[in-house]
Amino acid sequence: MSYQRLEKAFYRLAQLDHAIAMLGWDQQVMMPPKGNAARGRALAELQVMSTEIMQAPSLLEAMALAESESGGLEDWQQANLREMVSDIKAANAVPKELVEALAIASNDCEHAWRSLRQDNNWRDFEPLLQKVVDLTVEKAQALNAALRDEKGFANDYEALLDVYDPGTRMKRIDPVFTQLKTELPVLLQEVMERQNAESPPTGQTSPVEKHRQVALAHNIMGILGIDFDASRLDEAAHPFSGGVSDDSRITSRYDELDVFGGIMAVIHECGHSRYETGLNRDWRYRPVGSSMGMGVHESQSLFFEMQLGRSRPFIEAIAPLFSKHLADVPAFSANNMYRLCTRVEPGLIRVNADEVTYPLHVILRYELERDLVLGKAEVKDIPERWDVAMHEHLGLDTTGNYRDGPMQDIHWPSGSIGYFPSYTLGAMNAAQLYHAMQRAIPDAPELVGRLELQPIFEWLSANVWQKGRLHSYDDLMTGATGETLNPRYFLDHLRSRYRRSD
Amino acid sequence: MSYQRLEKAFYRLAQLDHAIAMLGWDQQVMMPPKGNAARGRALAELQVMSTEIMQAPSLLEAMALAESESGGLEDWQQANLREMVSDIKAANAVPKELVEALAIASNDCEHAWRSLRQDNNWRDFEPLLQKVVDLTVEKAQALNAALRDEKGFANDYEALLDVYDPGTRMKRIDPVFTQLKTELPVLLQEVMERQNAESPPTGQTSPVEKHRQVALAHNIMGILGIDFDASRLDEAAHPFSGGVSDDSRITSRYDELDVFGGIMAVIHECGHSRYETGLNRDWRYRPVGSSMGMGVHESQSLFFEMQLGRSRPFIEAIAPLFSKHLADVPAFSANNMYRLCTRVEPGLIRVNADEVTYPLHVILRYELERDLVLGKAEVKDIPERWDVAMHEHLGLDTTGNYRDGPMQDIHWPSGSIGYFPSYTLGAMNAAQLYHAMQRAIPDAPELVGRLELQPIFEWLSANVWQKGRLHSYDDLMTGATGETLNPRYFLDHLRSRYRRSD
Repeated sequence: MSYQRLEKAFYRLAQLDHAIAMLGWDQQVMMPPKGNAARGRALAELQVMSTEIMQAPSLLEAMALAESESGGLEDWQQANLREMVSDIKAANAVPKELVEALAIASNDCEHAWRSLRQDNNWRDFEPLLQKVVDLTVEKAQALNAALRDEKGFANDYEALLDVYDPGTRMKRIDPVFTQLKTELPVLLQEVMERQNAESPPTGQTSPVEKHRQVALAHNIMGILGIDFDASRLDEAAHPFSGGVSDDSRITSRYDELDVFGGIMAVIHECGHSRYETGLNRDWRYRPVGSSMGMGVHESQSLFFEMQLGRSRPFIEAIAPLFSKHLADVPAFSANNMYRLCTRVEPGLIRVNADEVTYPLHVILRYELERDLVLGKAEVKDIPERWDVAMHEHLGLDTTGNYRDGPMQDIHWPSGSIGYFPSYTLGAMNAAQLYHAMQRAIPDAPELVGRLELQPIFEWLSANVWQKGRLHSYDDLMTGATGETLNPRYFLDHLRSRYRRSD
Repeated sequence: MSYQRLEKAFYRLAQLDHAIAMLGWDQQVMMPPKGNAARGRALAELQVMSTEIMQAPSLLEAMALAESESGGLEDWQQANLREMVSDIKAANAVPKELVEALAIASNDCEHAWRSLRQDNNWRDFEPLLQKVVDLTVEKAQALNAALRDEKGFANDYEALLDVYDPGTRMKRIDPVFTQLKTELPVLLQEVMERQNAESPPTGQTSPVEKHRQVALAHNIMGILGIDFDASRLDEAAHPFSGGVSDDSRITSRYDELDVFGGIMAVIHECGHSRYETGLNRDWRYRPVGSSMGMGVHESQSLFFEMQLGRSRPFIEAIAPLFSKHLADVPAFSANNMYRLCTRVEPGLIRVNADEVTYPLHVILRYELERDLVLGKAEVKDIPERWDVAMHEHLGLDTTGNYRDGPMQDIHWPSGSIGYFPSYTLGAMNAAQLYHAMQRAIPDAPELVGRLELQPIFEWLSANVWQKGRLHSYDDLMTGATGETLNPRYFLDHLRSRYRRSD
């Protein structure tokens, strides 16, 4: 059976992905610095091997046959076939040599970025990034040329968007981002005025040792349903969640003077982790049993962090844990913590941004990377364009501050261009899903207040995690919430949370 | 060029080996327990992929051509070709399905062993081990059938010996082991009498926190030339050294009441690590640039641990570090530490054994595994044969104590049958190499006393590390020491160190 032939190839790809995921985690979390060159070679070779599997003429023949024989397949197998075909076509659009060149260039650039960013050294970073951008543009052109007819891409950039968030096009993003660009500055102004009229919340003043923060993090992870026999928590410069379904690797960072930053990162990564570990086990090692694009993935992390994690009942419920693990000080009183966790303040750093200003960071990056790919901007123009946009959106100056400007993110140096919009799509998905969950579980706020979160996780499991890639993104959202993406829920959420008076 | 075609295949194999090495390290050191099934699948698939590369008809054709075209190659390339051909032939002797079945069975058995050993549960362990032994015997038969004519194996067990220590045959081992079985009990008797006539050394009485032991270990690793930008030290139940040449992963275990055990394990693993990281960089990713068999590998760890690490000048030189990092107590005085580190005492556990009794543990295992493979013993007979041999060699009883008897080692459950003799061959190689090094560097004891070890490492580098697999084992030993393996040096070393009076 040709379908089984495809499944066998994807089983092998899943095992290569296991290796790539774990080697990637190790590279960020464990690897000594001199190991990087050898690691880059190994990762590049594994990626080339994946590409060779995808580009094998026998697989393409099996794919054609499987499509013609698909009558006897069950629904989930039909969906699996659809996803396999889509993955194979995408993998065949980019030449193997380009895959390898991009893997090596982005490995080199990302590695150099770690120290160059520390040194605020744009000059030496620019040529490395230029190479990554050039190769990524080549990849975008190849994807667009091969898949345009079938997928309806309007341009090369849309082909990259589709890599991270299948189905997303600029015509979905542009009107929504325009609306955010219009409404958020107004809301921001209102919030700043309210905040300025109030006495500020009490900040954390005394340092908290790392091991206490880790103990608190473990406690909260347990509340969020993390199984420590199938997960680890480690430290990384840039928090992320990696690993595989039975072996989830969560990372965070710990600043002795900013406990909230590290803990909120943990809560965020728990959302990613529960999604991956909550996928349908019967469909394991198959595309249909994998997570959806990054816009849905990010909806889970932001459901955990923003919708649940920074809600007043959740903060009130976990405040006693802060006092228990850290210190019984005014900064960790429930009301003060809620005010701290929902404080709005325009800043230079995306990952530290609050919910209100975050989309403006994303829009800046979206417009810039889009123009880079479409030939309307050049790598050397990035610092100036960054500065102009930061002035315009947030009234902040980044002249000469590359470290906290265009060198702050890992995405571009590691070759992830087309990824940023997923964050804000994720935020909107999360708000819409949380709203639907509250309709389905009317006593959700009370449950959250008692940290009885199991019904909420079950709702997520049934509506998102267990679905894998069975449905399209639009169908997934319609099944879960009754409608496709609607930015209203996100804007309502922001207004309701941030227009309050404390 | 067919030679380049082979090199390209071995480059890919080296990248797969990178992944396998790192995933294996992670499995022992980092992986949460529920990750094991998925990890086993991934490792098995990577091994199958390696086998497929080795068994590709086009590679076999290229091999035949390369052998006929080898005239223009440089010496090191000739050696590389010889090693590639040997590896390819061995890989083609075992069917891919058997490689995969053995990978899965040994992964399962090793994983179960970790808890079954804790529980002293031989009954549930036996069928898992039976499966591993059955498949290993099948592998031995396949190797022997395919390679007998060329390699001159006398039987199936020799084919397994050759996997771990190429070139080693029973006719090398048997007379040496017979000599050890005769001489060591006599020496043991003498040593025990001497020790009993003396007041015992002062044992460690108060616990030492792990972080202090780790700090001491790092200090000693630095003295042994470990580069921490290319290495890590972590904790594992069973100390080992893994990783790749630029990224060495050393592990140890820490017992608060036995600092010496953990530190000596670190020194041992440093020998393995320096060998791997000291290989010729110009030959990287090629068999000629890889380490030799386990008998040579173990010679490096035992050179570090036994010849250097437990020598009186080294112990005297590092004793102040124990006082500095741990506590200034009588147990850590130089003379007392030397007496502790060279104390002989028959015990149940191989890895805790002293130099005098260690070979008896190895001989027990050698005779047993040899008989298992040759059909002269069965898995169910292991506990009884173990008990008989422990009585005979060391006068100790292990009846019903599986945990500290036949279940103590990771080797058999993980499918490493034919490996044990390497430990004692390594001990003999180490003594012979140390003796030759001292001839070449007459002031070696004074250098050791000042911890100026660089000249010793340079001697090892020139004579062992940089050679890789350029020469055969016999030629390597002759080049370094002027003769092939001679057990005299090991026995002289034991007599000189253990017949002393303190």
